[in-house]
Amino acid sequence: MAGVAQAAAVQIGEQVESLVRSGFVHETTAAGLAARIQTPDTLAQACDGIEYVQESTSERIDVKQAVFRALDAAAPPEAIIASSTSGLLPSRFTEDLAGRDRCLVVHPLNPPHLVPATEVVPAPWTRPDVVQRTVELLRAIGQAPIVMQREIDGFIMNRLQGAILEEAFRLIDGGYASAEDIDIALCDGLALRWSVMGPMETIDMNAPGGVRDYVGRFDAMYAKIHESAGRRADWTGIALDRIEASRRAQLSVADFPARQAWRDARLTALLIHKRNADREQGR
Amino acid sequence: MAGVAQAAAVQIGEQVESLVRSGFVHETTAAGLAARIQTPDTLAQACDGIEYVQESTSERIDVKQAVFRALDAAAPPEAIIASSTSGLLPSRFTEDLAGRDRCLVVHPLNPPHLVPATEVVPAPWTRPDVVQRTVELLRAIGQAPIVMQREIDGFIMNRLQGAILEEAFRLIDGGYASAEDIDIALCDGLALRWSVMGPMETIDMNAPGGVRDYVGRFDAMYAKIHESAGRRADWTGIALDRIEASRRAQLSVADFPARQAWRDARLTALLIHKRNADREQGR
Repeated sequence: MAGVAQAAAVQIGEQVESLVRSGFVHETTAAGLAARIQTPDTLAQACDGIEYVQESTSERIDVKQAVFRALDAAAPPEAIIASSTSGLLPSRFTEDLAGRDRCLVVHPLNPPHLVPATEVVPAPWTRPDVVQRTVELLRAIGQAPIVMQREIDGFIMNRLQGAILEEAFRLIDGGYASAEDIDIALCDGLALRWSVMGPMETIDMNAPGGVRDYVGRFDAMYAKIHESAGRRADWTGIALDRIEASRRAQLSVADFPARQAWRDARLTALLIHKRNADREQGR
Repeated sequence: MAGVAQAAAVQIGEQVESLVRSGFVHETTAAGLAARIQTPDTLAQACDGIEYVQESTSERIDVKQAVFRALDAAAPPEAIIASSTSGLLPSRFTEDLAGRDRCLVVHPLNPPHLVPATEVVPAPWTRPDVVQRTVELLRAIGQAPIVMQREIDGFIMNRLQGAILEEAFRLIDGGYASAEDIDIALCDGLALRWSVMGPMETIDMNAPGGVRDYVGRFDAMYAKIHESAGRRADWTGIALDRIEASRRAQLSVADFPARQAWRDARLTALLIHKRNADREQGR
């Protein structure tokens, strides 16, 4: 465990250096940040005197159950225990714990240090003050928490992502669009706009009378689109062959790390741009 | 017609001035642009010697049919006739025309002068060279064309937008999320990321072995999400009440023009940022 933790600490150190170089994090903040990272040898040491746990082990229900049992035993009674899981409902790995009312899911989007949106998902027994303290902590570190009222498979963000992917696979399977077309449609179109103004505000302002007017004008069109979608698209057949061929023509798997570094650099620059724009033009 | 056209020319002039102020368009370019805008009194005058028509009349099939008949009669034989329609298939208003093989849909996203992605949708009888010349024209003016192989209701972008809206209405209807949550999930999460890297590239890089590995790992999760979605969500009931209440608490309909100006200013600044980032960090 110590070896893995130390390797992670080195990786975090490198990422912090890159954030300082880009101007996203101030140098003195970075030094303080690096000094606060510790790599204890045991769970008991790691939990000593803590207020908040962010669990990020494998996405397996048996692993989550075992780790949460250990964390609930080791962490101080008032500490919050949060899981990074994107696919497992919090009720499935906290139900039998003595301290289940202080457990919840806090699901960040990848890369978590650059994407503010973070889902807060309580189990049916999570105390409201635990949710509230978690939201305050996330806001204090610059994240944008989304608080679910109750759990559902995929939470909010994977359900929305799943909806886009489902329609993308359908369009590619049917020969209507290529994988590149889908990426242009989001990158230079819908997502460019949604990164400035979300979809609810967008439809509200896309009809003179607001969202009710919009639904009155376009509900029939969207009903027709939905009807033509029909059954679930096949994600494993010809669509997957086409997407894979298109992707490998553009980028080899060996070049993933370089492209991830490019993505993080672009995301960092975009966040600096947004921060300045918020200051100059308001939100 | 002349009065409407002159009012539009004034509005274009104001938007060009604002683009010059923000540094997005150079002053000399803007002067040349304004000089090229003419407001002829008749369709025959408007079509004299032209190479390309971008039709943007009402979204009604009878109007499109009448206008396309008139345009096909008035425009030089080699001119391309393109419609801005977002909801009508090109085959429905060009079938009976003598020049139907030079007609197609070129659907931009709103606001079209700031969002590059533009759908090119041929009818079954549109000539390939007409599609090719249209794509070259769009690229030359800085748009990002998406070329459909064949038509389908909603084209690509409204189908993808419809998929997001459908899931958003379902989550709001079920009390899982608020309208604000949906906007945070896109604006500070999914769309922030997709504006840098589209969803196909994102899933390709979210598993060590690429997109096939990703589908192998997550297809079952998305199948479960899709199953739990079930029938079409109700867009007109409690979800609409909730969205409208949330939106009106944030922005009155009277304040739409000011917010649109804010959106355009932010989009312009974002485009300048992306142009600089492309130059410095590559695409």
